[in-house]
Amino acid sequence: MFVETGVTGSNQLCVNVFWFDMNMLSLIQMQSRFCYQICLHREASQKQTQSPFFLLINCIYFIVLLQSLDYDNIENQLFLEEERRMSYMGFRCLEISRWVVCGLIGFLTGLIACFIDIAVEEIAGIKYRVVKENIEKFTEVGGLSISLILWVVLNSVFVMVGAIIVACIEPIAAGSGIPQIKCYLNGVKIPRVVRLKTLVVKVFGVICSVVGGLAVGKEGPMIHSGAVVAAGVSQGRSTSLKKDLKMFEYFRRDTEKRDFVSAGAAAGVSAAFGAPVGGVLFSLEEGASFWNQMLTWRIFFASMISTFTLNFFLSIYHKKPGELSNPGSHQLWTVDYNLYEIPLFIIMGAIGGLLGALFNKLNYWLTIFRIRYVHRPCLQVIEAVLVAAVTATVSFTMIYFSNDCQPLGPDHTEEYPLQLFCADGEYNSMATTFFNTPERSVRSLFHNQPGTYNPLTLGLFTLTYFFLACWTYGLAVSAGVFIPSLLIGAAWGRLFGILLASITSTGSIWAGPGKYALIGAAAQLGGIVRMTLSLTVIMVEATGNVTFGLPIMLVLMTAKIVGDYFVEGLYDIHIKLQSVPFLHWDAPATSHWLTAREVMSSPVTCLNRIEKVGTIVDVLSNTSTNHNGFAVVTQGAGGDEPAKLCGLILRSQLIVLLKHKVFVELARSRLTLRKLQLKDFRDAYPRFPPIQSIHVSQDERECMMDLNEFMNATPYTVPQDTSLPRVFKLFRALGLRHLVVVDDENRVVGLVTRKDLARYHLGKHGLEELQLAQT
Amino acid sequence: MFVETGVTGSNQLCVNVFWFDMNMLSLIQMQSRFCYQICLHREASQKQTQSPFFLLINCIYFIVLLQSLDYDNIENQLFLEEERRMSYMGFRCLEISRWVVCGLIGFLTGLIACFIDIAVEEIAGIKYRVVKENIEKFTEVGGLSISLILWVVLNSVFVMVGAIIVACIEPIAAGSGIPQIKCYLNGVKIPRVVRLKTLVVKVFGVICSVVGGLAVGKEGPMIHSGAVVAAGVSQGRSTSLKKDLKMFEYFRRDTEKRDFVSAGAAAGVSAAFGAPVGGVLFSLEEGASFWNQMLTWRIFFASMISTFTLNFFLSIYHKKPGELSNPGSHQLWTVDYNLYEIPLFIIMGAIGGLLGALFNKLNYWLTIFRIRYVHRPCLQVIEAVLVAAVTATVSFTMIYFSNDCQPLGPDHTEEYPLQLFCADGEYNSMATTFFNTPERSVRSLFHNQPGTYNPLTLGLFTLTYFFLACWTYGLAVSAGVFIPSLLIGAAWGRLFGILLASITSTGSIWAGPGKYALIGAAAQLGGIVRMTLSLTVIMVEATGNVTFGLPIMLVLMTAKIVGDYFVEGLYDIHIKLQSVPFLHWDAPATSHWLTAREVMSSPVTCLNRIEKVGTIVDVLSNTSTNHNGFAVVTQGAGGDEPAKLCGLILRSQLIVLLKHKVFVELARSRLTLRKLQLKDFRDAYPRFPPIQSIHVSQDERECMMDLNEFMNATPYTVPQDTSLPRVFKLFRALGLRHLVVVDDENRVVGLVTRKDLARYHLGKHGLEELQLAQT
Repeated sequence: MFVETGVTGSNQLCVNVFWFDMNMLSLIQMQSRFCYQICLHREASQKQTQSPFFLLINCIYFIVLLQSLDYDNIENQLFLEEERRMSYMGFRCLEISRWVVCGLIGFLTGLIACFIDIAVEEIAGIKYRVVKENIEKFTEVGGLSISLILWVVLNSVFVMVGAIIVACIEPIAAGSGIPQIKCYLNGVKIPRVVRLKTLVVKVFGVICSVVGGLAVGKEGPMIHSGAVVAAGVSQGRSTSLKKDLKMFEYFRRDTEKRDFVSAGAAAGVSAAFGAPVGGVLFSLEEGASFWNQMLTWRIFFASMISTFTLNFFLSIYHKKPGELSNPGSHQLWTVDYNLYEIPLFIIMGAIGGLLGALFNKLNYWLTIFRIRYVHRPCLQVIEAVLVAAVTATVSFTMIYFSNDCQPLGPDHTEEYPLQLFCADGEYNSMATTFFNTPERSVRSLFHNQPGTYNPLTLGLFTLTYFFLACWTYGLAVSAGVFIPSLLIGAAWGRLFGILLASITSTGSIWAGPGKYALIGAAAQLGGIVRMTLSLTVIMVEATGNVTFGLPIMLVLMTAKIVGDYFVEGLYDIHIKLQSVPFLHWDAPATSHWLTAREVMSSPVTCLNRIEKVGTIVDVLSNTSTNHNGFAVVTQGAGGDEPAKLCGLILRSQLIVLLKHKVFVELARSRLTLRKLQLKDFRDAYPRFPPIQSIHVSQDERECMMDLNEFMNATPYTVPQDTSLPRVFKLFRALGLRHLVVVDDENRVVGLVTRKDLARYHLGKHGLEELQLAQT
Repeated sequence: MFVETGVTGSNQLCVNVFWFDMNMLSLIQMQSRFCYQICLHREASQKQTQSPFFLLINCIYFIVLLQSLDYDNIENQLFLEEERRMSYMGFRCLEISRWVVCGLIGFLTGLIACFIDIAVEEIAGIKYRVVKENIEKFTEVGGLSISLILWVVLNSVFVMVGAIIVACIEPIAAGSGIPQIKCYLNGVKIPRVVRLKTLVVKVFGVICSVVGGLAVGKEGPMIHSGAVVAAGVSQGRSTSLKKDLKMFEYFRRDTEKRDFVSAGAAAGVSAAFGAPVGGVLFSLEEGASFWNQMLTWRIFFASMISTFTLNFFLSIYHKKPGELSNPGSHQLWTVDYNLYEIPLFIIMGAIGGLLGALFNKLNYWLTIFRIRYVHRPCLQVIEAVLVAAVTATVSFTMIYFSNDCQPLGPDHTEEYPLQLFCADGEYNSMATTFFNTPERSVRSLFHNQPGTYNPLTLGLFTLTYFFLACWTYGLAVSAGVFIPSLLIGAAWGRLFGILLASITSTGSIWAGPGKYALIGAAAQLGGIVRMTLSLTVIMVEATGNVTFGLPIMLVLMTAKIVGDYFVEGLYDIHIKLQSVPFLHWDAPATSHWLTAREVMSSPVTCLNRIEKVGTIVDVLSNTSTNHNGFAVVTQGAGGDEPAKLCGLILRSQLIVLLKHKVFVELARSRLTLRKLQLKDFRDAYPRFPPIQSIHVSQDERECMMDLNEFMNATPYTVPQDTSLPRVFKLFRALGLRHLVVVDDENRVVGLVTRKDLARYHLGKHGLEELQLAQT
């Protein structure tokens, strides 16, 4: 087993370490360039042997201190004064600018999606034409191996470019981005996830990987792009470009930013699938806990604008300007189903759940393998290129050995029909699935006439594509898993439909294997990602048929129930592997016997209303605790006992105060000293400097700081006997970051943070605590 | 001005009184049979003259004490013990039974909707056939006045039956029911709104009023029916039928019941419009503040089942079993729109907003008139019959004088084509709109070929139907406003489209006035009811075309903005007229200068942990305060100062305790006394007896009651400096009923309830308080 430790920054303890979960091997890898801050809970380790190796391997209770978002406004005096100064018209203007920002988010997200779509279509078109010509040239004269090499080289080059920019420039842009967005909407700020650089890498990365013929889709990256756009536009500035437009300064805080990011994610879904309502539900399902009507309308508006923009520009691109209904990406679905087909659909759902669980389990092992052995950028690039080469080779072999020839239809629905060894006027059916972008292949499987595919082709295709897609997800390329899942499901679903029609003599009733392709696609996707509500709506909107809502929902639910029995959803697995303190909707069902007293962290680092600068600097510099929120107290007469709570202050606020040297003595001596305003906090948001970068002289350490004006004077509190579900509900509903636990005299006894709540989860044997000391 | 007071029950002060709002005449009528409990805040009145007349007229600050729902669980010891005893499997079973209940709700709601649909279609079919034959008989021989009389009499009889059952049996079943459901989902329990009797009256009432040819729809009542079904099914018993199935006892509390009622309302919307997603969004838009994923899935499931059930049975009724896609109620929409049409749509939105505001204002005046003069059941029935007669007469006159003849299509899309004075093979076009159920007329306006209607017909129809619909809404019949609004809008929208096509020479571009009919319908409906999100989705789902999402949303938003400038939405007007303490999504924008100290009610009636029975009985019997929640405190050493908070107990709990005589002395003397269990509270739910019905002897008054076990030991609290938006957010997000305000020593200083928050609202001059003492 591999362990490496090293201090790469002043307070950043960067560790590559694996640790055992109670039930299964669960790994965290923190590569040094990610610079996560790690907090070692040593109390757990002290019971074990003290060797550094064992300390790291056996008994550590790690919680990665990813920053939490603060969805609760910091209502300090400055904030309240600003709000009170603001007139009714001021609030109206703010509301209007929120709508404008959402419109912009939708527009830009639509544009980006359009850019990705067109770029992929154009470049892939050139590639497929070149390869097709080459294959046609060599089919008769022999020497198809040259075509194979051409194909492999073309694909590998694209994938290599994509992998290099991801692995070397911005590793967070790898994968679909949906797990990261889920975390962000849940309230965990993963570093660098909504930066401009990430967006650029993501967009070009996904174009490279789709064009490179990998088993990937571009939907996940579109959603991530939408979120980045939202985070950028809403702040009215770019820290990366060092450009501040001095707009939307009011929105520079977590509360507002997260609202806009929800809108961005929804706009992304909407652009990716043409499903504005699905986008709204996706955002709400993943993120919003407190449902606010106005916010939802804005999210919906952003989604609508995004779909509209995409459709509008695509209609121009397809030279049918103004035809917004059918911009060449979705066909209307007019098939019907019967009541007695529902049990069949449910069986398909169960199959989807099983296959999905297998997919996830394989991918989980693969990810652990990757974390252990493939963690250098060069290795990651090599693996990506290898996958690209293998994908091309397998595709070519499948096409080569397939003898499933179909007559070319008069309408030429196939974009790049490969004749190969077929008779004139016919094309190779296997090639329609492999020699095409995955999105088009899905559409062919849904909509092509019965009889277009032969069962063997579909069976072989499902098998190979399943393993290729599984191998591909988690590579250091920007790529989503939606479309490959749909493709696998559509293939076996269509196969299921064909077999069913051949078994039953009354083949005419089971009209259209396309219907089964749709259900199979839903089942497979549901089995892998385990979303139900938003996915149902997305599928309904994408197919444009409301009637299929019930079967799709039943299928997705079955897939989820069956899949959950074996292993979690793919995104949840990846979130768990990063050990993010993810909060679910409710506290675990059997957690009523736990109270705030057991859950909270204590003792709490408290500050006085008027505190010595030296104390504050010491508290902030203490890397062993590394707290982000501090209770402010009024010391009682006694002094020894815990003092009465009077407020809450954040690390980021204290740092801004220290940076501006807001000390009581200075204020007295220099009357000209500018009063600190909310603007100073907003300018520093969101990249507050670390405490080490702030120099405090020995004299200044003796000064005092008055926190009264800056602390949140009315933090939410709970008594210590409050049950965990109650604490959880308050915490989750209000999107809190810190919840103070007080006794019945209003004295601080503890602090509940996200990690305190996230560590309880329901295992197979009831409630479990993610605490390794017990193993 | 009319004032009547009278004490009809021991503690029910029932008053018919009108009072002036600060800006406009706002009336409350509390008829004695509603038995609302009224709380007179006399402190406001004492500044004025003490004459009882003036006391009631001039200066009263009424808040009707409609019961609030408690969306927060009462976490007392009994509850926690039960939860702790429950195993993981127990929670799984509960979850499964929640799904079962939601499935049942969906199924039953679908069945009821199906029953209404079929009953209306059959009875209206007979009626129209009879009248049609009669008209045809008399057209040539003369004497059409006999046909008119036949029509008027038939309509009046149906409406009379409908009005009698509503006015005499269950007045709460009048109207669409949506305002009542909005209130319920918002957390206000309006008496008798979810009872079985209401359901029966609602269903038969709506059949009568639709068949009676009134300008009404059956959608609102379907939504209400869904909610009643949910409230009934989820409790596993019917108090009206005195039948207890001993099932679902766990769900007998406000938290669970409200969740199910949301599902029922969603199922109702889903059945009414074939829009399951729209149903979910309706429920969420109106009700849920805390968005819970599992709950939303269940709501969605109920909606899906409801649509499915309806479609399934309708497909059997239409003799095409299994054809679930098109059960004869919705046609697919395949028209397209262009970018440059969007400004036109927005103009139509503005028109819709204006017309909607006019509609609402007229209806508002009419409602005030009705409250003042038409409040006896017999008058209400007479008015309803009058409206029915006038509607029939006007319709007949319009048809009679219309000479808009159209050729009968080969496919006979018209159900009851009236030839009247037209040539053979032609039909009267005016009759397609008047001589039909409103729902079918809307469909004709949407889908009929261009040229089917002539502009004069549409103009006249819009005008007459507008006033008829306005007069009809608010009658003592069970009837909704959705379909009439759509019909008015579709008529003027189609007119708009026709005029547009005739103005522009390039008539071919503006293909299809049907498109404009759709937009007009959306605009008019949006202008009247002012919903945007759920309505967009409902319209999109009902038309089956996702592309029209953006224009519909823009139109609805424009209609809302324009309409809101003049007057509130129709439902809000009716809610306000009942002076329900309705909580909006956010606190008013400019309310940051208010703190909990100003908002709260004080002093608070506090009880001790162990309290004398006599004190409790006195507190509960005090009709001048009539509180529903009491803080439980531990008295300090001093005694005079406010004591430390240690819990919260509800009136309903105290009543159950008194009823079971849970006194400390009795427990000591009689060891056999059964310990009170959660079941006893559940059995009493939701109709807790009034305090007057509980007899407490003089001896018992001297006993003590131990509240420790029954009080909620960890109520949510806020410090007194908390700003109103913060209080509001906590209150709304957690669905609280009582929020205790404490000082920094945890001593009770006040209590915030729904009415304290609801009285602040944003007027034209900033924040206003609904306090009449100032006028």
